[in-house]
Amino acid sequence: MSTETAQPNQTAQSAAQTQPARHSKPLALRDVTVTDAFWHAEQELVRTAVIPFQWNALNDNVPGAAPSYCMHNFKAAAAQNARKSTEGKKFVPPAYTYRGFESKPADPKHPDPDKFYGFVFQDTDFSKWIEAVGYSLTQHPDAELEATADKAIDIVCAAQLDNGYLDTYYILNGMDRAFHNLRWHHELYCLGHLIEGAIAYYEGTGKDKLLKAAERFADYVGEVFGPKPDQCKGYPGHEIAEMALARLADLTGEKKYLDLAKFFIDERGTEPNYFVYEGERDKRDGYSDTNWSFDCEYTQADKPVREQKEAVGHAVRAGYLYSGMAAVAKLTDDDSLVAACENLWRNIVDKKLYITGGIGGTVNGEAFSYDYDLPNDAAYSESCAAISLAFFARRMLEIAPKAEYADVMEQALYNTTLAGMALDGKSFFYVNPLEVNPYACHKDDRLRHVKPVRQKWFGCACCPPNIARIVESVQEYAYTVSDDTSTLFTHLYMGGEARATLGGASVTLSVTANLPWRGDGSATVRLGDGTDSATFTLAFRLPGWAGSADAAAAAISASGEKAGGRVSRDVRDGYVYLTGEWHDGDTVSFDFPMPVRMMAANPMVREDAGKVAFVRGPITFCAEEKDNGANLHLLHADVAAILNDPTSVKVVPFAFHAGATGIDADGQGEVDDVTRDMVRLEVPAWREPVPAGMDAESPAFAPLYAEYAPAKREPATATLIPYFAWANRGENEMTVFLHD
Amino acid sequence: MSTETAQPNQTAQSAAQTQPARHSKPLALRDVTVTDAFWHAEQELVRTAVIPFQWNALNDNVPGAAPSYCMHNFKAAAAQNARKSTEGKKFVPPAYTYRGFESKPADPKHPDPDKFYGFVFQDTDFSKWIEAVGYSLTQHPDAELEATADKAIDIVCAAQLDNGYLDTYYILNGMDRAFHNLRWHHELYCLGHLIEGAIAYYEGTGKDKLLKAAERFADYVGEVFGPKPDQCKGYPGHEIAEMALARLADLTGEKKYLDLAKFFIDERGTEPNYFVYEGERDKRDGYSDTNWSFDCEYTQADKPVREQKEAVGHAVRAGYLYSGMAAVAKLTDDDSLVAACENLWRNIVDKKLYITGGIGGTVNGEAFSYDYDLPNDAAYSESCAAISLAFFARRMLEIAPKAEYADVMEQALYNTTLAGMALDGKSFFYVNPLEVNPYACHKDDRLRHVKPVRQKWFGCACCPPNIARIVESVQEYAYTVSDDTSTLFTHLYMGGEARATLGGASVTLSVTANLPWRGDGSATVRLGDGTDSATFTLAFRLPGWAGSADAAAAAISASGEKAGGRVSRDVRDGYVYLTGEWHDGDTVSFDFPMPVRMMAANPMVREDAGKVAFVRGPITFCAEEKDNGANLHLLHADVAAILNDPTSVKVVPFAFHAGATGIDADGQGEVDDVTRDMVRLEVPAWREPVPAGMDAESPAFAPLYAEYAPAKREPATATLIPYFAWANRGENEMTVFLHD
Repeated sequence: MSTETAQPNQTAQSAAQTQPARHSKPLALRDVTVTDAFWHAEQELVRTAVIPFQWNALNDNVPGAAPSYCMHNFKAAAAQNARKSTEGKKFVPPAYTYRGFESKPADPKHPDPDKFYGFVFQDTDFSKWIEAVGYSLTQHPDAELEATADKAIDIVCAAQLDNGYLDTYYILNGMDRAFHNLRWHHELYCLGHLIEGAIAYYEGTGKDKLLKAAERFADYVGEVFGPKPDQCKGYPGHEIAEMALARLADLTGEKKYLDLAKFFIDERGTEPNYFVYEGERDKRDGYSDTNWSFDCEYTQADKPVREQKEAVGHAVRAGYLYSGMAAVAKLTDDDSLVAACENLWRNIVDKKLYITGGIGGTVNGEAFSYDYDLPNDAAYSESCAAISLAFFARRMLEIAPKAEYADVMEQALYNTTLAGMALDGKSFFYVNPLEVNPYACHKDDRLRHVKPVRQKWFGCACCPPNIARIVESVQEYAYTVSDDTSTLFTHLYMGGEARATLGGASVTLSVTANLPWRGDGSATVRLGDGTDSATFTLAFRLPGWAGSADAAAAAISASGEKAGGRVSRDVRDGYVYLTGEWHDGDTVSFDFPMPVRMMAANPMVREDAGKVAFVRGPITFCAEEKDNGANLHLLHADVAAILNDPTSVKVVPFAFHAGATGIDADGQGEVDDVTRDMVRLEVPAWREPVPAGMDAESPAFAPLYAEYAPAKREPATATLIPYFAWANRGENEMTVFLHD
Repeated sequence: MSTETAQPNQTAQSAAQTQPARHSKPLALRDVTVTDAFWHAEQELVRTAVIPFQWNALNDNVPGAAPSYCMHNFKAAAAQNARKSTEGKKFVPPAYTYRGFESKPADPKHPDPDKFYGFVFQDTDFSKWIEAVGYSLTQHPDAELEATADKAIDIVCAAQLDNGYLDTYYILNGMDRAFHNLRWHHELYCLGHLIEGAIAYYEGTGKDKLLKAAERFADYVGEVFGPKPDQCKGYPGHEIAEMALARLADLTGEKKYLDLAKFFIDERGTEPNYFVYEGERDKRDGYSDTNWSFDCEYTQADKPVREQKEAVGHAVRAGYLYSGMAAVAKLTDDDSLVAACENLWRNIVDKKLYITGGIGGTVNGEAFSYDYDLPNDAAYSESCAAISLAFFARRMLEIAPKAEYADVMEQALYNTTLAGMALDGKSFFYVNPLEVNPYACHKDDRLRHVKPVRQKWFGCACCPPNIARIVESVQEYAYTVSDDTSTLFTHLYMGGEARATLGGASVTLSVTANLPWRGDGSATVRLGDGTDSATFTLAFRLPGWAGSADAAAAAISASGEKAGGRVSRDVRDGYVYLTGEWHDGDTVSFDFPMPVRMMAANPMVREDAGKVAFVRGPITFCAEEKDNGANLHLLHADVAAILNDPTSVKVVPFAFHAGATGIDADGQGEVDDVTRDMVRLEVPAWREPVPAGMDAESPAFAPLYAEYAPAKREPATATLIPYFAWANRGENEMTVFLHD
């Protein structure tokens, strides 16, 4: 960001001239389509199942689910504003119906129309929904949905105070304590989500009413917080405003938003510690809306961000902070901040990442555990945390295209993110364990956070809408264009089209791909405006799962390379750069190897000692009881046989049938009968027999301890399915790692 | 118990005529001595270190430790009694000094002399101490200790109300709520410990002042609780009164105490559930000294005891209840209660017992976890719970002599019980994990209960005095005599003397033994009163660790068997019964095999899959970092080599040097330089190398996940020490189970 007067959407380009050419930014969502079977199915699920469900949820219209009160709160705040206004007008919320549901709560105990209900961050239920709606409308116009959204926006905007403040918790409960409990209350988190939602809706529809409201709120926050002596030196207790403000700056060209994001980041964890100050002040003043034992590490405020070498605390907060740091580092060209991001990235990827792309080893604080502590059954691995890791990874890619970032992003997207949602889009995991024994989950208080089946909705409904918004915008993760417009990067291979202006030419890349099941596909170059040829670079990621960069590079070729060497190649940081004169109709073909990989964790991961997991392409596999019987801990991968003949592991395309009913009285874990094409693995294995007499009545009862004898090996085949598809056939055991 | 008018100490004998001859009872403590090196050392530790320390603790005289307030509370209650008495006299507590410590609290902030302080069960600090003192005086007269104890008893008795009630919490806080919170407040627990302590002191000194006070309290409780319509139908929230009352009945011959114990047991868990009733009543009446979410399973009150098949809830409570059930079952000849005890015993031993003799797999409720859930690092395995298991086992032995009971009792005593105390007797474990990584204990909230070094004292000081009382009375676990006086059972082999009247003759068994390090020894028969011969049975346990009953029986022989067959043998239930005409000077020699046994857990114990533990005789071994280096999870037992040649495991007698300083600023974990003769094992092993670059700075940094390759095996020897001796050389890693 080199100028204060840059025009909207031109910031990055103008700044690029003074920045390294490796900086890039995602293509606008409207410039990319995803049409391949895999992601199209996921997006349709979100569009047809999740978005309507969410709307009902935030209108308290889901029978059996705790009411959100989100729209109620906005209406109450709008009504209060109207009463207080000089005109004294009454606020009449616009009536909306959408897919048969009315806007009036179904709850017969109608809440007090003037009161706030729910969590302090309840406003974000709307922001997350409107974000997903915005993305969806980009790809799939829907007049009814847009009309409903417009009415919701009218209500939300009517709730905003004249000064721009917009958080219904304080608007309804009294503004005297606004911004006084940054540690636990989520006003700045609400700001961040509002910005993200407003931008998405603006990009999806061109309508800027909500965007203007978000800007006004941001402007007000920019008055309250900042470096001037009379400004508050606080920062978000739950991060997200940082990345949202950076995005707003990038969209509007307004440097003030970037300055505010940078202020929040630079101020965080410095001495005197703001959160410590705030806690002591509130304790002194006798305020009870605080938690005395607040731990600064929990919210990454224990030290200045540039001194943070280890990813700690609440994993979602951390992922959002790191994403914000990366976004600001890129836009401000701040090497020290880039270095901090790189340190934190290394710590996560080298010591704190599940093989499912999840992060957050402990339920205590929903947090990162210590280095190499990655419990399988007690994992937290929140869906939102994996999503935040994808956010972080994409922003690291925008700073510097390195395949590792895309590898981890892809791992997080295809595994834990998608595992968060049932195959019918109607139930969700908050926690994503790598090993589940339902009996233990029911019996063991230490596993209270682990649900063996997906739940319909959550009181703290962060994960479902987070999944909705990332799935609906997954195209943004596939491509970036360099700030100098010389290069189009393909980070993820998705069938569809990407449009960009490269070297002055209007270019459409038309891609076919078969991920995650096959590594082959092609990209065809179309030049617009009757142009026959143009000079630019197409850079393609060489996936880590395809083997060495050389091997993967050998699997991709451009027609222009053969045709007289119009196009030449360069391989660096896991990308092949194809540069030269491209002709309309040129193709790039790829056929990346996609071997089954039998993986072991670093020996310092005590939890995984003597165990292996199976990965193929971006997909991590798991064994379910449905396919393999109970007592999965007695099912061993026959590692010797597999090492001896890697082809002994069979890769079997098949139609996966989801469906489960009657899991429990509340209908949790129910999944519709849907079918998805997938690949399963059939792995040479052996089974240790279940001891006789496990019901204690049998005369052949096996003692609790006996002299060791090598286990009897019953030959077996382990059937592994993609991790994201587990728990779609009812409650059962599951494990990612098998004993060797 | 067949008569209401039986004389003291004759109850069992008179009842025996109508009971199966297999019933037996322990020899009185004064009739047994323990002189062997192993137990003598433990008892001397308790006598010289623990008992004086405890006295200081309950007088708030331990610098740095939270005050107990135990004696303070008794003095305050005594003073209040004196003021309220018709005479209006003032209570002047007798001054006592003991080993240089004065009775006045060292705390400069002297507490209010009229107020109660501490936990509701604080009185039991005294009762547990006086119990250990009583046992100690039996074996080792100590005038200064006895004089101090007498003065303490004077204070305690002066605190008793005229009606017999004796719990200073309610005496000082108001009697209106006495017996109104049985779930959480420990009045009946205080009664139980008071009885146990009073009996011990009576047996040790012949003085009955405290015993009479305990009887008066029991009499009062017997008026309040019972089957009559106007009596309370409650029972102890924390069990122990049941076993204590049974013991009091046995000592005094008073059937009323047995009736009360039986009432508590029979009433427990019946409908309408008393604890549920109490909670609802208190909620209705608005009392706040309750916990609404009380879980009846936590205190074994979820169903009638005869319907309980699974050991559940707080493990110490459970062990005490089961002990009380067994004691009452024997004295009342109640087959249905015996069957209930057998069911619970089977569940514990078959599904819920650590290989260290510990019980209680989960910190949540300090409780039994579900079947086969025996986590090593997160174990609770409270010292007190292992002790309660020994209590239970001995009472099962009294019902029917079966070697399994003695095997488990021995396992609990030699391993978890002794592990609870440092080798200098000055610090203690409450929790006894089977695997410790100190780094994880410090970092991981989920392991907050696990301390990597013993602690000096606890606010809730149950374990140290429990260890003291069982160690000082360990002789009671070695021998029982059948109710028909025909048979003397030797359950544990300890060097020393046991005196009993058998078949009318006065018999002294003089035993030499070398447990736990060697299986050999002998017992010499001495007949008293100039008798040359007498006819009776000496029954010796055939330890499970010595192999099959036949093999073990072959390792024991009586001189009388050779000498014309005066003595014949019968082997049943793991005991060899040697019956016939014994002559003065006859000997029984034994030399039980004591092989090293490489043990594996039942495959249903998921935690121990692919692991082995080493056991020899009654001792369970463990590997410590001090001997084996860090990262014990990378140290594998070479199971193939050991199976191939069992003698490859070396048994090495050695002098173990304890000693640790400077563990932390509070002096926790410090151990004096003491030396104990032990045996260690040297086990063929291999080590998986620690990956390069674990500090993340190294260029050879190992990735978090990599394609599986068989581990590189560095030949190694694993050095294993007895589990009870771990953590005596400072903070370090420890594991009982090694990977195979």
